Amino acid sequence: MKLFGNSMSTCTRKALFTLHETATPFELVVLDFMKGDHKSPEHLTRQPFGQMPALDDGFMLYESRAMARYIDDKAGRKLTPTDPQHWALMEQWISVETSNFTPHAMKFIYQSVFKREQTPETLAKAGEGLDVACSVLDKNLADKTYLLGDQFTLADIMYAPYLEYGMLTDAKDRILAHANVAAWWNRVSERPAWKKTVGR
Amino acid sequence: MKLFGNSMSTCTRKALFTLHETATPFELVVLDFMKGDHKSPEHLTRQPFGQMPALDDGFMLYESRAMARYIDDKAGRKLTPTDPQHWALMEQWISVETSNFTPHAMKFIYQSVFKREQTPETLAKAGEGLDVACSVLDKNLADKTYLLGDQFTLADIMYAPYLEYGMLTDAKDRILAHANVAAWWNRVSERPAWKKTVGR
Repeated sequence: MKLFGNSMSTCTRKALFTLHETATPFELVVLDFMKGDHKSPEHLTRQPFGQMPALDDGFMLYESRAMARYIDDKAGRKLTPTDPQHWALMEQWISVETSNFTPHAMKFIYQSVFKREQTPETLAKAGEGLDVACSVLDKNLADKTYLLGDQFTLADIMYAPYLEYGMLTDAKDRILAHANVAAWWNRVSERPAWKKTVGR
Repeated sequence: MKLFGNSMSTCTRKALFTLHETATPFELVVLDFMKGDHKSPEHLTRQPFGQMPALDDGFMLYESRAMARYIDDKAGRKLTPTDPQHWALMEQWISVETSNFTPHAMKFIYQSVFKREQTPETLAKAGEGLDVACSVLDKNLADKTYLLGDQFTLADIMYAPYLEYGMLTDAKDRILAHANVAAWWNRVSERPAWKKTVGR
């Protein structure tokens, strides 16, 4: 399995975290985004939107959330609940991450990590959205170790890259104001597979 | 199974289309968004972000893409490829819909259908994004009946609400400029389950 990406990219980190959690052997082919490797004709044959990562496992696959599901499936679905209702709720939390959490978190990450200036209005709106999402997550996590309960799943993986970078921004205090979210992030970020992903 | 939503809402339509395709019995509890039913305290217990739809099947589930997967799973996975690589590619196309197609299509839909004025700059940028997404879809559909081949899957379902409304906007000509996308949408929109969904 070959992963084309960069360990600094949030989407590459979702795939890497899943690979490490499932102990799947792989080779990382590093794309240098400063050099525009992700926009090269060669990479566009792998990922037509010019984004990273892309996965080659005898067929080409892109989109990190699809990759995470595929990697886990191939490894025996260790990170996916077997109960149909729990599985559906895992999918719900992945959708919440995609639609209600990440778009807001990314505004802070653009501003402070990737140095893409955001307007004060954009950041204010993102702050409000992040507060709502964190409140919803916090309530769910009140009686749980991970989003789905005792089992660590793909849903937890999806949030990790945005929380890691979010902690380097003004979003930090907003996130940590939610005690159950803070405790959950502490548990997720201490996982050996996450430490490997970010090179800690 | 009780679906709380409105047949005019794009996300409700994804759930409805899946329910009709799988011939799953259900009851639609209509929420009136003009009256703000989706922001009512009662609905917030079902869907804490105040969005629609929400599903009650002895447990509460929200997020339409999670619902579609759950409904199909319960009905025997008729709309999900059994081959692991095809399944992963179905998930890829669902992610492309969520991240690369819908955000652009919705700008046109806000402008022309839901009357939420967009700036010319926003629409120009959305137009460019839509062109890229349609080119990628068009290439994939060159030798296929549906996104995954001969099998109609959840991936096809996800695009339908945005294509249906997109046809009422300035996005129409941009979409129809891609012949394979146009032919695919013709096949999808002629399915009896879609006609039931939109009340045609």
